[in-house]
Amino acid sequence: MELRKDERIDDLHRKGYKIIQNPNKFCFGMDAVLLTGFTSVRQDEKVLDLGTGTGIIPILLEAKTKGKSFTGLEIQEGSIDMAKRSVKLNGLDDKIFIVKGDIKEAEKLFPLSSFDVITSNPPYMNNKSGIKNTLEPKSIARHEILCELDDVIKNAASLVKVGGRFYMVHRPNRLPEIIVTLKKYKLEPKRMRFVHPYVYKEPNMVLIESVRHGKPQLKIEPPLMVYKEVGKYTEEIYEIYGYNK
Amino acid sequence: MELRKDERIDDLHRKGYKIIQNPNKFCFGMDAVLLTGFTSVRQDEKVLDLGTGTGIIPILLEAKTKGKSFTGLEIQEGSIDMAKRSVKLNGLDDKIFIVKGDIKEAEKLFPLSSFDVITSNPPYMNNKSGIKNTLEPKSIARHEILCELDDVIKNAASLVKVGGRFYMVHRPNRLPEIIVTLKKYKLEPKRMRFVHPYVYKEPNMVLIESVRHGKPQLKIEPPLMVYKEVGKYTEEIYEIYGYNK
Repeated sequence: MELRKDERIDDLHRKGYKIIQNPNKFCFGMDAVLLTGFTSVRQDEKVLDLGTGTGIIPILLEAKTKGKSFTGLEIQEGSIDMAKRSVKLNGLDDKIFIVKGDIKEAEKLFPLSSFDVITSNPPYMNNKSGIKNTLEPKSIARHEILCELDDVIKNAASLVKVGGRFYMVHRPNRLPEIIVTLKKYKLEPKRMRFVHPYVYKEPNMVLIESVRHGKPQLKIEPPLMVYKEVGKYTEEIYEIYGYNK
Repeated sequence: MELRKDERIDDLHRKGYKIIQNPNKFCFGMDAVLLTGFTSVRQDEKVLDLGTGTGIIPILLEAKTKGKSFTGLEIQEGSIDMAKRSVKLNGLDDKIFIVKGDIKEAEKLFPLSSFDVITSNPPYMNNKSGIKNTLEPKSIARHEILCELDDVIKNAASLVKVGGRFYMVHRPNRLPEIIVTLKKYKLEPKRMRFVHPYVYKEPNMVLIESVRHGKPQLKIEPPLMVYKEVGKYTEEIYEIYGYNK
């Protein structure tokens, strides 16, 4: 497998899968991995990941579930190039499809209501002021430069089947806006989990499952703790990552 | 102090205050106490409690804060009668005012935008089917028979000052509806805390502070745990209750 300048190959601890990343651009974080731990995909379901980056979410979901196909939509050429080579490296060309496109136009790229499951780990930050290199891959992945929360949710709502699930990871400080926007597009929040670095710390991530046209009734799960002591993950985190301790 | 049939006097562990309750009707629960622990009232602020029952929230807030006045609105005669006698029993006639009235009409009973802080521990359950004695005090306190979530939030939004705070305790399974309704009436959720029976259990209560016309930015606090082991409260719960262990 050909690697370009500054790229590296990381082991994913799942079925021997690997991923190509470039640390000068953007490497996947714990949020993407936790989202795959929170997402449930049933046998033969079709999955779409909005803003897939280097394809971490489709690759991990293919490893963890019995879904039929996993499509990753991405706008950045550099990420698409790496994602496609990772798919090939893992021999997954018949299961994972990397598509170039804009989240804002996603509902024009795929048939409406055609996915059972949609996932997204979108840019978290809506404060565009003070960003220097706005077209750097890291900025695009972290800040709402090319798409905003409303775009992600609107397009997810158009593409997921009625009764299908949309899974997102985001920042707790934007929860009111997230909930209002989900409900605006008839995605009913059904399951939610907060991720806390330590048991007595405030959460720094929230995982949300919403169901298109679902009945209102939210289940908030027990807190997901990351560390049990400094430098030592909880059992649950080891399990989600698939590490052998 | 005259007690009526089946009434009892309970010690509140704060400034020697006591409360008259009738266990055949309704006794205050942990939710009311936790709400007073979560609510902040600054010096000389005016406070209103919507659906005050036997007055537990105004009495505890008077004990814990330096607020100027505490008004409790209640519709049920029996509760009003007990609340008024508890206020007198504690010598608080010049600080706590129990007013008879309907939450749905609250905005007609008080001047608009006249309170710094509003609190409410409203009925949680919106499923009216299967309730037998719908006009029993316990049913009225627990089920949305005489008022619904929208009424509580609408009236709180009318009566609290711009920049003033509304504090509510409710069930996590209704969080999406709560947030959408708060935002509908321009009460921005600013601070939220989930209450978990045990560290690894899902939350059974949520405490929410919203600010009228506040800037969107939610802070979710660390989980509040009730028990550290069976029958043994956490330090924080002892502290909120004011018990001497």
